[in-house]
Amino acid sequence: MCRSIATVSVSGTLAEKLAAISDAGFTGVEIFENDLLYFEGSPSDVRRMAADLGLAIVLYQPFRDFEGVSPERLARNLERVKRKFDVMHELGTERLLVCSSVSPDTIDDDALAIEQLGQFAQAAAQAGVVTCYEALAWGRHVRTYRHAWQLVNAVNHPNLTLALDSFHTLSLDDTPDAIATIPGERIGFVQIADAPKMNMDVLEWSRHYRCFPGQGDFALANFTAQVVKSGYTGPLSLEIFNDGFRGAPPAATAADGHRSLLLLEELTREALGSADQAAPLYHPSAPPAHAGWQFLEFAVDDAARQRVADWLEKLHFRRAGQHRSKDVTLYRHGSAAIVLNAEPDSFADAFFQRHGLSLCASALRVDDARLALERAAGFGYQPFSGRVGPNERVVPAVQAPDGSLNYFVNEQPGQPTLFEADFVLTDVDGPTEVGPIIGIDHVSLSLPAGSFDAWVLFLKAVFGLQASAAVLLPDPYGLVRSRALFSADRGLRMVLNASVDPHTATAETVRAYHGTGLNHVAFSTADIFRAVTEFEAAGVPLLRVPANYYDDLDARHALPAEFLDALRQHNLLYDRDEQGGEFLHAYTETLDQRFFLELVERRGGYDGYGAPNAAVRLAAQARQRSRPAGQDGIANNK
Amino acid sequence: MCRSIATVSVSGTLAEKLAAISDAGFTGVEIFENDLLYFEGSPSDVRRMAADLGLAIVLYQPFRDFEGVSPERLARNLERVKRKFDVMHELGTERLLVCSSVSPDTIDDDALAIEQLGQFAQAAAQAGVVTCYEALAWGRHVRTYRHAWQLVNAVNHPNLTLALDSFHTLSLDDTPDAIATIPGERIGFVQIADAPKMNMDVLEWSRHYRCFPGQGDFALANFTAQVVKSGYTGPLSLEIFNDGFRGAPPAATAADGHRSLLLLEELTREALGSADQAAPLYHPSAPPAHAGWQFLEFAVDDAARQRVADWLEKLHFRRAGQHRSKDVTLYRHGSAAIVLNAEPDSFADAFFQRHGLSLCASALRVDDARLALERAAGFGYQPFSGRVGPNERVVPAVQAPDGSLNYFVNEQPGQPTLFEADFVLTDVDGPTEVGPIIGIDHVSLSLPAGSFDAWVLFLKAVFGLQASAAVLLPDPYGLVRSRALFSADRGLRMVLNASVDPHTATAETVRAYHGTGLNHVAFSTADIFRAVTEFEAAGVPLLRVPANYYDDLDARHALPAEFLDALRQHNLLYDRDEQGGEFLHAYTETLDQRFFLELVERRGGYDGYGAPNAAVRLAAQARQRSRPAGQDGIANNK
Repeated sequence: MCRSIATVSVSGTLAEKLAAISDAGFTGVEIFENDLLYFEGSPSDVRRMAADLGLAIVLYQPFRDFEGVSPERLARNLERVKRKFDVMHELGTERLLVCSSVSPDTIDDDALAIEQLGQFAQAAAQAGVVTCYEALAWGRHVRTYRHAWQLVNAVNHPNLTLALDSFHTLSLDDTPDAIATIPGERIGFVQIADAPKMNMDVLEWSRHYRCFPGQGDFALANFTAQVVKSGYTGPLSLEIFNDGFRGAPPAATAADGHRSLLLLEELTREALGSADQAAPLYHPSAPPAHAGWQFLEFAVDDAARQRVADWLEKLHFRRAGQHRSKDVTLYRHGSAAIVLNAEPDSFADAFFQRHGLSLCASALRVDDARLALERAAGFGYQPFSGRVGPNERVVPAVQAPDGSLNYFVNEQPGQPTLFEADFVLTDVDGPTEVGPIIGIDHVSLSLPAGSFDAWVLFLKAVFGLQASAAVLLPDPYGLVRSRALFSADRGLRMVLNASVDPHTATAETVRAYHGTGLNHVAFSTADIFRAVTEFEAAGVPLLRVPANYYDDLDARHALPAEFLDALRQHNLLYDRDEQGGEFLHAYTETLDQRFFLELVERRGGYDGYGAPNAAVRLAAQARQRSRPAGQDGIANNK
Repeated sequence: MCRSIATVSVSGTLAEKLAAISDAGFTGVEIFENDLLYFEGSPSDVRRMAADLGLAIVLYQPFRDFEGVSPERLARNLERVKRKFDVMHELGTERLLVCSSVSPDTIDDDALAIEQLGQFAQAAAQAGVVTCYEALAWGRHVRTYRHAWQLVNAVNHPNLTLALDSFHTLSLDDTPDAIATIPGERIGFVQIADAPKMNMDVLEWSRHYRCFPGQGDFALANFTAQVVKSGYTGPLSLEIFNDGFRGAPPAATAADGHRSLLLLEELTREALGSADQAAPLYHPSAPPAHAGWQFLEFAVDDAARQRVADWLEKLHFRRAGQHRSKDVTLYRHGSAAIVLNAEPDSFADAFFQRHGLSLCASALRVDDARLALERAAGFGYQPFSGRVGPNERVVPAVQAPDGSLNYFVNEQPGQPTLFEADFVLTDVDGPTEVGPIIGIDHVSLSLPAGSFDAWVLFLKAVFGLQASAAVLLPDPYGLVRSRALFSADRGLRMVLNASVDPHTATAETVRAYHGTGLNHVAFSTADIFRAVTEFEAAGVPLLRVPANYYDDLDARHALPAEFLDALRQHNLLYDRDEQGGEFLHAYTETLDQRFFLELVERRGGYDGYGAPNAAVRLAAQARQRSRPAGQDGIANNK
């Protein structure tokens, strides 16, 4: 299966675009006319460049406003397309995309369109090219692939085929199911684009907000499955108009595009079920059925280690072990484990030098670590191996988009655990008292805006996570885009945050720490009132919540007075879902102006992250940043 | 007239918002409920803060989803609003905004709504507050001010009044003309917002894209004139939901908000015509009826002066004078004048230290310089005076948003001109040969994205310029937002450019030179073929245009072969408007990687700037940046 992408999908000059597309692993490319227009060389120069890079030029596009015109206009249009055929010969491409007419004076007469498209097909036959007719979602009269197929089928000429584009079908909430009934050899070209659901003019939506498969909200696996069922065997080609991609480095964009096609093929294969039809589709090993946090690893120096350790100890974490060969310490509380890495000249050290105190690695418990690594590498993510001491475990790892590591850990029955293998464990029997923390509920990352969608793709491709819809959170100094990803069994939950504006806490953190990454860790507890009481007694400073918040909470949810008082007393935030599930959570103040911890208690199947409370938290953090606590002259709630 | 703004319109904590709003000159403020919610203090703390700042809290908002409900729900809603009345008493505000219901289960029954709003009015009367009922453009049943007024009029209770918001009326293309027929005392509150015309969901449009009056596309002077005609004398209040404002410093945003209200009042006064009604509206002296470029002044050091002078001389500018007391040189060609300022320890020197070679001042010929300065200062722009030598002219000046100066120059009959007063003129009789440059056609600025709308307001307020709609231009590395402003007689034309993405030429220029400002100067000529021939002979490097551009131009416009050849030969770009007006233009390569010159010839009343050619120019400039000329192995067109 030829994997292709349109030049309009990545930034740069045409030469830069083609190089990035080739490097990413694509074997085909669509030449978008404007890119040729701006190119200081002939179409045959482009042909040579593409050939040198191993790229087939699978399509030239677009040709507009051909059908439904007066006889005079038809003659001009045929003249116009002949010049394009000449360009195509020079480019060495066979296929031309023609879009359904958008001109206001297009005549609404299918018979006329069929007659004129017939002449178009004959001209194409004379020139030895194949034309592909596409229904634009905002076409004047032809807007659906069914209508376009009626015309193409009626013309019944091998040089006029149907072109499909997932955006044009799915943006109209049209069903793609009839695609399977179209003979595959009559489909000349298939373009794939995803997009977030948006309530806006479809042309604007298409021109600015398309994204790679898996980054938006469209059901693309089903769309592509219908294409495969039709018998189509031509290129699958990404055509992505995206304002962000226009401003991003082309190599990273193209690499993500290629990954997104691989992931789409895998999901299409699942949607198809039948192995016969799915044969040419990418087929990696399945993502881990169960994944969870084994440990989080922070890059520290001696001073940062002291500060974090102090904080962890107040949260009743215990120092549980020392690495056998490295300056690495293990802390545990419940199933939550934190590793502090101060090993000189290591990966963590390099991370610390660049990013300061930061999350340099996450270790994920998976069913099969080797398969998980193989899968990640198959999607083009970079495997990583560090130094390993005698008898220590070799742990497979892959680099995340920010360069941090994701370790894959699976424990074998009867074998030493990773902690046993690599650490001299102290306090082996665990504390006699069980602390209030159960484990890690979720990890929240602060990202540069440009890497947000790359992370979505990484987490979907490597771990098979699902994504919630993105939400916008109001920080006092701008908006923050936020999206949660989670595994089917909720063993792994991550929240990605990126600032829309340059002055939010998220943006400042990202800038100050050179683009990475941890915003906060949320620990789960079964009794948050006990947890906050114990932690406050131990000197953990909790973020103060304004009294007005509780007045409003009462107006919204009509909570029992005693319960509301208890929330207020402990600076706890509260949310409730439509099924009555409840979320109680509290935040610590920030450490190193950078990250903070959250305690969460989920009740009755609550599955969110307390998004309605995010603005309250962001405003409280902004106050904390802008002045030391206690200097505002306003008393605490208590 | 009380000028007010809603807290949601500016960024920051509530304390920061109120301070910025007060500093900008507002006398009223609307407290948006969420801002109170996030505030760590009581409503009476807010009351004190506002009072200390001289701000009246003119409105508390919003109260939602009151009317058209079941009896049980009505009881709950009345209970809910009583708590809000309590908050209002603490805040010390009399007015509450209530929005037409958006809930899907709202009962569509005007009689029921009237009955329930009647109870609402009675509750308000008991509490001693006035409620203001507003039709949201996306209300469930009540969407227009006419419909809202029908209900309010039927209730006929002094504690229920009508609230107007220009966005809700103008976003629906509804006419505001009936507002004048509503008794002014029955209108309880008026909110003002502008917005660019956008084809999108009206709720999303309202929540993210509102802007200050004069920055968008709505006919606000007519709207406000209808309000004044009604006899309304309450606050005019800005309620601006704008993603950019959320991320911008509050002081600058609030200052522009206040200016925009002053400008709106002036335009409303014009729309009204009658002085009686217009009495309380802001009334500055009129903007200059005729304005044009007197000179452009560059901050230079010795080396930069040499480079610019060399370039100007190749363009047949002549060294026309030396300043009497400063290290400042004058160059002239036709009516175009360029001043190079290398005076140590001067304003220009400070500008050079910070921004390098840059446009530090523009001198505008106006009808009356003193009035022009007075007008600018009235809008809150900062007047500037520099050192003046003996017998030299004191030239009034005001600071533009980037800190550069705008001089106002008017020459008096029989008096020495500014150039004669301040310069020892050489070459007084001018050259015997007349050069191909006539004057300055337009000046184009590269701006940080955050200052774009501030510039629009500055140019409208100070010079009375009109603005074209904004367009998006594709640079190979991202999008550039562009908007032209011009005077009625086209004596002054400016083009503002700001990058949407961080890697475009515009963005890199803005970053490298700390946020200012000149992108290019376009000189006008009556014979562009002569001009480029002469300038090329003099060694001016012109930006090369790809051959493919001319093939496409031919396909689009079917130009005579000889004409097309001449364009190609001289790297000239071409555009044609619908009336047959033509635009021929050429660009030089860039100087100091920073700015460049354009030569333009307008034929047949062409009034644009060749926007369809911008992408070709940007791509050619990107090629020039990414590699030295001649290294691409592809021959020039010639």
